[in-house]
Amino acid sequence: MDFFEAVEKRYSHKENFLPTPVPLEHLKRIAKAGLLAPNGMNRQMVHMVILPDRESVAKLCAVSPCPGLKTAPAAIAVLTDSTQAPPPPHDANFEKEDYSAAAANMLLAATALSYASVWLDSPYWGEEQQKGALKVLGAPNTFKLWVVLPIGKPDGEGSRRNKLPPEQRISYGQFGCKL
Amino acid sequence: MDFFEAVEKRYSHKENFLPTPVPLEHLKRIAKAGLLAPNGMNRQMVHMVILPDRESVAKLCAVSPCPGLKTAPAAIAVLTDSTQAPPPPHDANFEKEDYSAAAANMLLAATALSYASVWLDSPYWGEEQQKGALKVLGAPNTFKLWVVLPIGKPDGEGSRRNKLPPEQRISYGQFGCKL
Repeated sequence: MDFFEAVEKRYSHKENFLPTPVPLEHLKRIAKAGLLAPNGMNRQMVHMVILPDRESVAKLCAVSPCPGLKTAPAAIAVLTDSTQAPPPPHDANFEKEDYSAAAANMLLAATALSYASVWLDSPYWGEEQQKGALKVLGAPNTFKLWVVLPIGKPDGEGSRRNKLPPEQRISYGQFGCKL
Repeated sequence: MDFFEAVEKRYSHKENFLPTPVPLEHLKRIAKAGLLAPNGMNRQMVHMVILPDRESVAKLCAVSPCPGLKTAPAAIAVLTDSTQAPPPPHDANFEKEDYSAAAANMLLAATALSYASVWLDSPYWGEEQQKGALKVLGAPNTFKLWVVLPIGKPDGEGSRRNKLPPEQRISYGQFGCKL
């Protein structure tokens, strides 16, 4: 798919997914697109855990149930190795920047392959949920799980959120100057 | 350009740019791709200031000189309106997530249009530099400038950083499990 077509088509899918399995080759391609995102100081501290089937997604969903994971046939969990960065609020921590850029790339990659997805972070904010999710994923406790992206074919047209006109958020030369 | 081709071709251009101007239409297209990135709670707090010519880039460069801006014929500054989010370390602050996802989209968009770019954040970490940059950009002091993306045709093949094999950073089913 053309790059700009993928950008236009991407949306946050908050509804159900069809049970159609996602080929592992597609999941790998999406994860690799995430690893090719820019990252601070080339630390490469982002790691992905591909949950390739309903069974593995269901185990993670049980830790902190949320609509996006209840029906998804696959998912990708995005973690960082916190031992590789100075702790926040250090400007060069980069964990949030790195995982976010990787997630943005992956959401576009999923769209380019005709899947829907959504950025699920709040289910893992709680200490207990974070600990439980890391356990299910088998990740060391020095890692942080930031976001899980369910991947699948959408069960029908997903809703779109209203967006401000781009003109309200883009200035030229100086803030507030319009063309 | 195909989405996955853009992902493969994107790199951090740390060398000089050619003086060739960038059509405003392309800068708008890149900025719009950034606005179409996912954002937390649909707050839409990311704003872009397009610096469409060498003169406007030079003014920002004077605040905190850095190689990427010394030769770039255009740039896009990415800011957030900090009044729209609970202050960090609140999990739902989302300023870093939102600007990072927008920047990731824009770097791919620049690549898809055959430009080079790089993520410039550290020049604006210092209090004085942040204040100076906001002044040059004419942005309210409740805004934060996170990153500036120089945009232009590269003056020669830029260097690439070594990357770990994806297999070291992607697991299947559980962390550390390879195919």
